[in-house]
Amino acid sequence: MASSTARALYEQHKPHLEAGLAACASRAYWSPFVESPSGKLHAPGRAEEGLARFQALLGKPYDLGQPGETGRIGHEVSPYTGQPLGIDYPDCDPDVLFAAARRAMKDWQALDAEERAGVCFEMAFALEEQAFANAHATMHTAGQAYLMAFSGSGANALDRGVEALVYACKALRDVPASAGWSKSFGRGGVVSLDKSYRTRGRGVAVVVCCATFPLWNAYPAVFANLMTGNPVILKPHPNGILPVAMAVKRMRETLVKAGLDPDMVLMAADEREAPVTIALLEHPDCAIIDYTGSQRFGLWIEQNCRDRLVYTETAGCNGVVMESLADPDGMIGGLANGFCGFSAQMCTSPQNVHIPADGVGLPGGGSMSFEAFGQALADTIAARTADPARAAALCGAVQAQQSLDILADIRSRVLAAGGRVVLESRAYVHPDFPDARTATPLVVEVDASQTELFGEELFAPVCFLIREPDRDAALAHAAELARTRGAISSYLYSSDRDFIGQAQDAFTDAGASLWINMDQRMPINFAAAYSDYHVTGLNPAGNACLADLAFVAQRFRIVQFREPRPAEAAQ
Amino acid sequence: MASSTARALYEQHKPHLEAGLAACASRAYWSPFVESPSGKLHAPGRAEEGLARFQALLGKPYDLGQPGETGRIGHEVSPYTGQPLGIDYPDCDPDVLFAAARRAMKDWQALDAEERAGVCFEMAFALEEQAFANAHATMHTAGQAYLMAFSGSGANALDRGVEALVYACKALRDVPASAGWSKSFGRGGVVSLDKSYRTRGRGVAVVVCCATFPLWNAYPAVFANLMTGNPVILKPHPNGILPVAMAVKRMRETLVKAGLDPDMVLMAADEREAPVTIALLEHPDCAIIDYTGSQRFGLWIEQNCRDRLVYTETAGCNGVVMESLADPDGMIGGLANGFCGFSAQMCTSPQNVHIPADGVGLPGGGSMSFEAFGQALADTIAARTADPARAAALCGAVQAQQSLDILADIRSRVLAAGGRVVLESRAYVHPDFPDARTATPLVVEVDASQTELFGEELFAPVCFLIREPDRDAALAHAAELARTRGAISSYLYSSDRDFIGQAQDAFTDAGASLWINMDQRMPINFAAAYSDYHVTGLNPAGNACLADLAFVAQRFRIVQFREPRPAEAAQ
Repeated sequence: MASSTARALYEQHKPHLEAGLAACASRAYWSPFVESPSGKLHAPGRAEEGLARFQALLGKPYDLGQPGETGRIGHEVSPYTGQPLGIDYPDCDPDVLFAAARRAMKDWQALDAEERAGVCFEMAFALEEQAFANAHATMHTAGQAYLMAFSGSGANALDRGVEALVYACKALRDVPASAGWSKSFGRGGVVSLDKSYRTRGRGVAVVVCCATFPLWNAYPAVFANLMTGNPVILKPHPNGILPVAMAVKRMRETLVKAGLDPDMVLMAADEREAPVTIALLEHPDCAIIDYTGSQRFGLWIEQNCRDRLVYTETAGCNGVVMESLADPDGMIGGLANGFCGFSAQMCTSPQNVHIPADGVGLPGGGSMSFEAFGQALADTIAARTADPARAAALCGAVQAQQSLDILADIRSRVLAAGGRVVLESRAYVHPDFPDARTATPLVVEVDASQTELFGEELFAPVCFLIREPDRDAALAHAAELARTRGAISSYLYSSDRDFIGQAQDAFTDAGASLWINMDQRMPINFAAAYSDYHVTGLNPAGNACLADLAFVAQRFRIVQFREPRPAEAAQ
Repeated sequence: MASSTARALYEQHKPHLEAGLAACASRAYWSPFVESPSGKLHAPGRAEEGLARFQALLGKPYDLGQPGETGRIGHEVSPYTGQPLGIDYPDCDPDVLFAAARRAMKDWQALDAEERAGVCFEMAFALEEQAFANAHATMHTAGQAYLMAFSGSGANALDRGVEALVYACKALRDVPASAGWSKSFGRGGVVSLDKSYRTRGRGVAVVVCCATFPLWNAYPAVFANLMTGNPVILKPHPNGILPVAMAVKRMRETLVKAGLDPDMVLMAADEREAPVTIALLEHPDCAIIDYTGSQRFGLWIEQNCRDRLVYTETAGCNGVVMESLADPDGMIGGLANGFCGFSAQMCTSPQNVHIPADGVGLPGGGSMSFEAFGQALADTIAARTADPARAAALCGAVQAQQSLDILADIRSRVLAAGGRVVLESRAYVHPDFPDARTATPLVVEVDASQTELFGEELFAPVCFLIREPDRDAALAHAAELARTRGAISSYLYSSDRDFIGQAQDAFTDAGASLWINMDQRMPINFAAAYSDYHVTGLNPAGNACLADLAFVAQRFRIVQFREPRPAEAAQ
């Protein structure tokens, strides 16, 4: 029965799978999801209903129907209100969770790739159905602005899940179910063998989610694992449980509706004071780890969980190489948006602007001095954040107090080191949530030699204007930091095709991708599923790309059978 | 120039690439190489010329034109003559080798996947050209019989190299060179980006070869690495240098002819008394390890070289589950061949026959007692090895004295444990090489409880007849040993479709492939490139399959660039 339901879901979603396969090949734009919360695109009342759904969850126990519950857990605080959400979640015995996952895996592996794809697509659309409620849950845990929470943690994140689903499907389809093989063995004559092949998952995957984008890398990991036959235990950040719990609940419901064991998807929540992550990662039944979070813990996992398959996306100090500006307003505007967007709490946010001391080229042959460029960028940032409503839409809230501490600390360290503050960070007053934790970008000027100030990701809205001897030094420094400290998105502004070519070679050698001349017509750090290969896996900002064939191909293996046909049939 | 030569080679070999892609999809038989040394298939005199080429190498220095030579090295002894080959090889400074490889990598990565495939196919056919000389070199280092050395270390091994080449090509072709992408960003309008993608190798690969099949796993590793952009340093076994040196020389010549840097392929030889393997594996520039050899060292690598990509094929104690025999003569004959073939020095050779105490079913409903089956198998083995010429063709020579020591040791341990010797091993007298180190299979009877006797691979021709309570116990025991101790090829003999189904499920759970009812029409342990997935990577006999997408997809990464088209063009 489960299999026939899954088969029907595959038939239903087959056009999406085929469109996804085509998109990953052409890398052109495609999405089956509605990205905008605009009233024109949704049935009347959907936005209000989503808000009501979210509000109905507050202050109550949240149930997932999971096995092994030993107590209740969870103390999330909203960055917008400063108040606890008052929701508690099941605290489950890891041994029971792993055992349940392994039981569920057995039946799930009987489904073929297409049947699994059918169920996973059904999950994705079921998740989209709660996009409005999820947007509020994401706002009040991660601190994202409403629009970003709707699209970036909704449709855009689901697209990345479908992208991984599609890659897994490609890899699984590469293995046929059966084959006939005939070969002459000299005097033995022609021997014919019937062969059959089974794909087999590696085991239980633990997906560690981060605080500011609880589902962004979770969906790719979940769908990559489910598609390849592996059950998933999601470990949310202690302050980002609700969006994960809502997603887990919805995926478990989809499994039940399909007649399948819901324990293919489980959640193991914890609290900051009693973390469970390492116990999950070191559990003997943990076969796969998908991790999003700090570089330090990512490195610990890479070094200490050597018996598991480990996929990490951590962080880098994303650099910007300034050479010349073909469109000064549009490009400085694009950069300013990049520094403001979600208060730079994104893995793709820029941090370090490497600027030649003799200035930045302008159209027509003129140039803008180092100071003038820095001031223009700072002024643009100040203008973007002057109106509280605009600041709120662009910056959202700051997820953790720690980011404000980082701002204060780096400000004083820059001043102590002889640097200069070009633009102070300030808390803007959010029009809807006066108690929101907010911060506009801090812009500081430093010298290229002061790598100790900017040579790692500072998880806060800070923009370093770095005085470099010349453009070649700016390029070399940015590429070197990408190679040695990590980078997820790097940026170049130049009108000189030769210099662009040199930069492409330098960033290739550094193992980092480069976005060139991105202007304000779109968010410069937007990462498009099916088109942009997110994270190279070649520098310290992560060991994997989400998604490519390498992200999925190791998650399953092949077991084979063969048997000769009787000699009569072979002749 | 290099690129145009490589492009021409691609055009020349394109039909082979397309045929290889088709074979890996259908998994039907295909080979572009001549498998048999039969005079009918080769120009007159080729066999004699090959022998002369080999003989001309004996007693002389062997030159590879490699950088960093600090001395000469190598003391190989022929298992057929007991005499040293008298050949010495360059002893090269690892630092110089790694630096040369990294230099070569830079230009090589400018070639696209098709150009690399052209060069690799050219290498493969250049290697085939020396198949006769290689057969003698393989005989006198590994101990293989002439026919096996020609096919198994020639065409069959090259097929496996091409199989890896084809998988790498698939994975690389999955990444387009460029793409156009357009998306509406609300009030920003439609933004169009030009995107381009570069694949990039991970770094220098060290390929550790084994003593008895010096090139069998080396070719897949070499071609997987070259295709994905990575230079290769081959590390031969101290007694298996010559075949590897000949292959390295030929591949370097092919690179030079194509106008490319030959240092994409290098050799680092050593001697037993001064091993260099660990220094190579721990070199800071070693990015990838492909290892074939003992389980113990394989495990050491998996645990200690965590910063590298590690692919291992080690060893397992391959089991045979006996339930019933539809064709007793043909199947016992097939098994006997499996125990005799190359004196069981193959990773696919059977070792442990799990037999129900109440015997083995026969056609028509009768059965053969445990003792009668064991005697029949022993008698067949004895008959196969009675005639020295037939024994020579089937068993070849024993590569290492250690295997004879293992035979003596296990014989006494079996007797001490109350077991029984059913057939003694003996040294047959090779008709052409009277001093050859030889051994026919030892057949012993033990109890299922005595796992300490047979629970690991014994690298010697030994057949354990294991008395199991019943067929279910036989199946469970064999599957459990595959799961916990490793297995590369497992075997089942049964006419009961229900029992076969149970066995398939049990071996799937054990992560081991199963060959069913293989008879003497072909070698039961033959592994067909393009068709059989060699090694599952799911049990201790290795962590990778050679070859599938997972074997190649991690060996390269993707770096990306993107740049907006001007607004005018986008509207």
